[in-house]
Amino acid sequence: MSKNIKKIGVLTSGGDSPGMNAAIRSVVRTCAYHNIECIGIYRGYQGMIEGDFKEMGPRSVNNIVNKGGTILKSARSLDFKTTEGRKKAHQNLVNAGIDALVVIGGDGTFTGAEIFNNEFGYPVMGIPGTIDNDIYGTSHTLGYDTALNTVVECIDKIRDTASSHNRLFFVEVMGRDAGHIALNAGIGAGAEEILIPEEDLGLERLLESLQKSKASGKSSSIVVVSEGDKIGKNVFELKEYVEEHMPEYDVRVSVLGHMQRGGSPSCFDRVLASRLGVKAVESILEGKSNFMVGLYQDKVTLTPLEQAIKGSSKIDKELLRVSDIMST
Amino acid sequence: MSKNIKKIGVLTSGGDSPGMNAAIRSVVRTCAYHNIECIGIYRGYQGMIEGDFKEMGPRSVNNIVNKGGTILKSARSLDFKTTEGRKKAHQNLVNAGIDALVVIGGDGTFTGAEIFNNEFGYPVMGIPGTIDNDIYGTSHTLGYDTALNTVVECIDKIRDTASSHNRLFFVEVMGRDAGHIALNAGIGAGAEEILIPEEDLGLERLLESLQKSKASGKSSSIVVVSEGDKIGKNVFELKEYVEEHMPEYDVRVSVLGHMQRGGSPSCFDRVLASRLGVKAVESILEGKSNFMVGLYQDKVTLTPLEQAIKGSSKIDKELLRVSDIMST
Amino acid sequence: MSKNIKKIGVLTSGGDSPGMNAAIRSVVRTCAYHNIECIGIYRGYQGMIEGDFKEMGPRSVNNIVNKGGTILKSARSLDFKTTEGRKKAHQNLVNAGIDALVVIGGDGTFTGAEIFNNEFGYPVMGIPGTIDNDIYGTSHTLGYDTALNTVVECIDKIRDTASSHNRLFFVEVMGRDAGHIALNAGIGAGAEEILIPEEDLGLERLLESLQKSKASGKSSSIVVVSEGDKIGKNVFELKEYVEEHMPEYDVRVSVLGHMQRGGSPSCFDRVLASRLGVKAVESILEGKSNFMVGLYQDKVTLTPLEQAIKGSSKIDKELLRVSDIMST
Amino acid sequence: MSKNIKKIGVLTSGGDSPGMNAAIRSVVRTCAYHNIECIGIYRGYQGMIEGDFKEMGPRSVNNIVNKGGTILKSARSLDFKTTEGRKKAHQNLVNAGIDALVVIGGDGTFTGAEIFNNEFGYPVMGIPGTIDNDIYGTSHTLGYDTALNTVVECIDKIRDTASSHNRLFFVEVMGRDAGHIALNAGIGAGAEEILIPEEDLGLERLLESLQKSKASGKSSSIVVVSEGDKIGKNVFELKEYVEEHMPEYDVRVSVLGHMQRGGSPSCFDRVLASRLGVKAVESILEGKSNFMVGLYQDKVTLTPLEQAIKGSSKIDKELLRVSDIMST
Repeated sequence: MSKNIKKIGVLTSGGDSPGMNAAIRSVVRTCAYHNIECIGIYRGYQGMIEGDFKEMGPRSVNNIVNKGGTILKSARSLDFKTTEGRKKAHQNLVNAGIDALVVIGGDGTFTGAEIFNNEFGYPVMGIPGTIDNDIYGTSHTLGYDTALNTVVECIDKIRDTASSHNRLFFVEVMGRDAGHIALNAGIGAGAEEILIPEEDLGLERLLESLQKSKASGKSSSIVVVSEGDKIGKNVFELKEYVEEHMPEYDVRVSVLGHMQRGGSPSCFDRVLASRLGVKAVESILEGKSNFMVGLYQDKVTLTPLEQAIKGSSKIDKELLRVSDIMST
Repeated sequence: MSKNIKKIGVLTSGGDSPGMNAAIRSVVRTCAYHNIECIGIYRGYQGMIEGDFKEMGPRSVNNIVNKGGTILKSARSLDFKTTEGRKKAHQNLVNAGIDALVVIGGDGTFTGAEIFNNEFGYPVMGIPGTIDNDIYGTSHTLGYDTALNTVVECIDKIRDTASSHNRLFFVEVMGRDAGHIALNAGIGAGAEEILIPEEDLGLERLLESLQKSKASGKSSSIVVVSEGDKIGKNVFELKEYVEEHMPEYDVRVSVLGHMQRGGSPSCFDRVLASRLGVKAVESILEGKSNFMVGLYQDKVTLTPLEQAIKGSSKIDKELLRVSDIMST
Repeated sequence: MSKNIKKIGVLTSGGDSPGMNAAIRSVVRTCAYHNIECIGIYRGYQGMIEGDFKEMGPRSVNNIVNKGGTILKSARSLDFKTTEGRKKAHQNLVNAGIDALVVIGGDGTFTGAEIFNNEFGYPVMGIPGTIDNDIYGTSHTLGYDTALNTVVECIDKIRDTASSHNRLFFVEVMGRDAGHIALNAGIGAGAEEILIPEEDLGLERLLESLQKSKASGKSSSIVVVSEGDKIGKNVFELKEYVEEHMPEYDVRVSVLGHMQRGGSPSCFDRVLASRLGVKAVESILEGKSNFMVGLYQDKVTLTPLEQAIKGSSKIDKELLRVSDIMST
Repeated sequence: MSKNIKKIGVLTSGGDSPGMNAAIRSVVRTCAYHNIECIGIYRGYQGMIEGDFKEMGPRSVNNIVNKGGTILKSARSLDFKTTEGRKKAHQNLVNAGIDALVVIGGDGTFTGAEIFNNEFGYPVMGIPGTIDNDIYGTSHTLGYDTALNTVVECIDKIRDTASSHNRLFFVEVMGRDAGHIALNAGIGAGAEEILIPEEDLGLERLLESLQKSKASGKSSSIVVVSEGDKIGKNVFELKEYVEEHMPEYDVRVSVLGHMQRGGSPSCFDRVLASRLGVKAVESILEGKSNFMVGLYQDKVTLTPLEQAIKGSSKIDKELLRVSDIMST
């Protein structure tokens, strides 16, 4: 164990996700377990620049394992994109005696950490926290599993209405660059079709599918659409398009929006957060730096931050086929 | 007990709401309890015109007390607005030997029932089913309590994100003509301000309130907005307005949409549905007609359909004051 | 408004219930709204004796409207049952400049408050907080509505298993002296029979009912049993009895237990808590004392504490009939 | 693709679990997709013996993807343990023209299937459905993820009460032979200690841990206990033991019971069920038999039934260490 690490800082950055608090708790308690001090840094990199620090003992994270959001708050920091900002941040860490940093967030957060590490040789370790699951090197990001449950619960409710009225619903879910949420929640919610950024189904194919579905005796249908679907139309345009071509359909739209980011984390996300926090801190204590901790084939692993940033998290295309079969 | 009633029809019409299935179950089982036949009529008045009937025994409504939507489906019927359509519907009822009708729905449903009663002297009884709670003569419509819980759960999730990022959220909830949902869910969710159709807060007052809230140390705020708010701006326009006047705020919008109509009914709605179904059937058996069954001061009561239609369901203005105090 | 009241204390006592935090928040913010200081007293009367006080400003109750339990903690106090204990408590209040007290809890809590008021002429106001709904003078106690939803959600899950296996389940719910939870949750969950403290169904009648239910084609049944059911057998004894007399049944037992007291409050409980907190504080400011605030016929009312303690909260016997009809 | 398979039977057996309906739906629709007939067999092997069959088209499984329990019902069959019973069952399958069987269940279900296959050379394929996650060859059984969420939600509620009253709770969860639920839900719920069948913590160590926890300033504690914990005491005995040795503690017990088996499946379980159903049917069509489909390292795989039965599903012992660190 590294003799040099006496104090570790932890922050959350970027969009919040369920499980971030559980990860903070894990980092704080793993530090305490190893008799290391832990400092919470508020509002991500911006708080690092402003010296918004607070010592965190094991009791300071009581009763947060099940809370959505992040008690350390999150913010986007333009200042951290400047050399000057990063210098100030580094100085603050040095002044406070903080020896290493655990950052919880997504792509942007990791990019910031890597630059910071490159510039100052400062030890950093990343924990993937975002509902989008769009990070290379981990099968699951923190919050993704919870978001899937939130989405299917919402669509279950919409289906009550859809099937009572024989309606077609376009439901927009989060995922600007990655279709993980749409694809899995779509299968989970029994969607007729799923439109994602990775695959262009084509408008004709969509129409055909809806017509086939109607012909097969289905009285209502749900189409799940990723924010960044490749088909190039948002849910409102899709509604118009389908109404024009299938006037017999009563088409509605629902944009699930920000509630997908909140809520009490699922058991999976809580356990994952606990495991990743332990690994992040213990990896630092073993002298490692510049890695992301993640889950790969059910095991906790390390991926170089650079790879985590550059690589892309692929959807499982077999799931498209499963979805297709399920909507028989 | 009326000797003449041997068969009762039941239908759901208009927008669906949680508790409709529990009400259908109650009507069906109360009929069985009194040895009356019960006929389910599909797709509201349209199914009445098309003769889409099905006999319902007590076992046909097993396991639906907790299901959202309506197993009898709902539809809006243009045909029923014509004399011809209603004549056909009446003939179908007569042919099927159905002696009286229980209709579950809102204002429009009751209006149809009243006209039908006026034209044919046909016994009808209404059960208020709509999430909006905008029916005179009942403190609660079926689905309203469930919708309130759905809305506060959604806003709780949004608050996780809002408070992690110090954001202002405008959340649009259902209620085109009535602010019941916005007002109660707003208080329940701890909203900073609540905009409803019944009261014009005014844009300046809104700004002032948000500024005061910021000054008082609140880092995030939720404003709950009824679809039909009097302020005359939708949530997207409100966002623009506030961003213009309070550039320091990061403003977001969420439109909760159709999920508010679905979901498993709350215990309150299930019990209310059970009570109203019993009262509706037994009132018919007592020879009554043209009433709505409802809840008034915790008791099940009858209100003439005409009054239920013409009267308006007032919000409790004291709640506006409570909301104001709560956002101190 | 009473010029004499400058500082109000608030405490929770007895078993906790969902909505207590929302009530604390309401008391704190209503004080702030009226420029009155508010002091939180920890662990009920015990903390009053030990001087465990903390000043509470409006920001100290941020983000608790939706939290179960009580941030002020609760405890039973043997010391407060002694004259000496109460004297010490009174002295602490006087020393801290606290002019009046809002107590949130049930029967026992109110009894303590009344004695305290009698002895010292000290202004007290009660808010009913208990899931059992066993308080005279209010149609709903804080937490009751939430507990009903918790119970029906649990029984919905049990029913999945019951109906997959054609089983009979005895489900024990809270309510030692009052059958409100059993009766309403029983109807809400579609129970075959409901056993409560207020009414002796009789074992033969129970058997008969289960046999009729089986004969009518129901493949599974749920019987909801209050802790204090009059039939004089607990759920395990009931299981044995039925297995002996109906060996064809596969009987199981589930005791829902303490989870019924927890969880995020329903919208109803949050709104009720907000209203009651406002009324409690403002009544004190109007110079009133020794009342319980409550809900009666949808209006917030005052009931003398003495009556609230001595009176008993009756179940609505019509609900027994509704339950009977629903299990047709 | 095997030309010989024209009709596939599907059944559920043993304890029900969330996701069984989603798996049935997947089997039925995958059959339809490949133009194979699908026959639902009611009440597991017992229904196979009694010829309780029903043809299932793709519309017959509408709206069940999100339902707990099993629409095909489940039962334990003593008759199927006799040669005679199995002969009759086989004859029924042959008579009905059913060419292969998909069985959804746990260990016992698979043992039955393997014997049946051995005796008659009849093609069988298993899908692991049990909340206990105690099957070798799959990282997740259907229902396990849902049960974990159910358990943590219950314990979250219990914690509200525990922390309001400074109490110690022993919470018993399912898992007679395997500690998966206790271990993961225990970490997820932030349990102080976790008692499982695989590891004997020892009573002294438990006391020590509780004392340390109290000393460290924790005011309340949750201990999660598997039904089949190795420590050899049930939750009621543990309560007595701790009360005797730590009289300062107010100890309570909660047995979560059967509700753990029910409820709407999580998104994870729905997607897994969909994937496994596709794989089961398509493996049969490829001429395979006597396998269990499962998830291994995030991929759908086949494990010989014999291995699935004989092998044992190990807990991840690293999680015990994580739990230990988390309770710092």
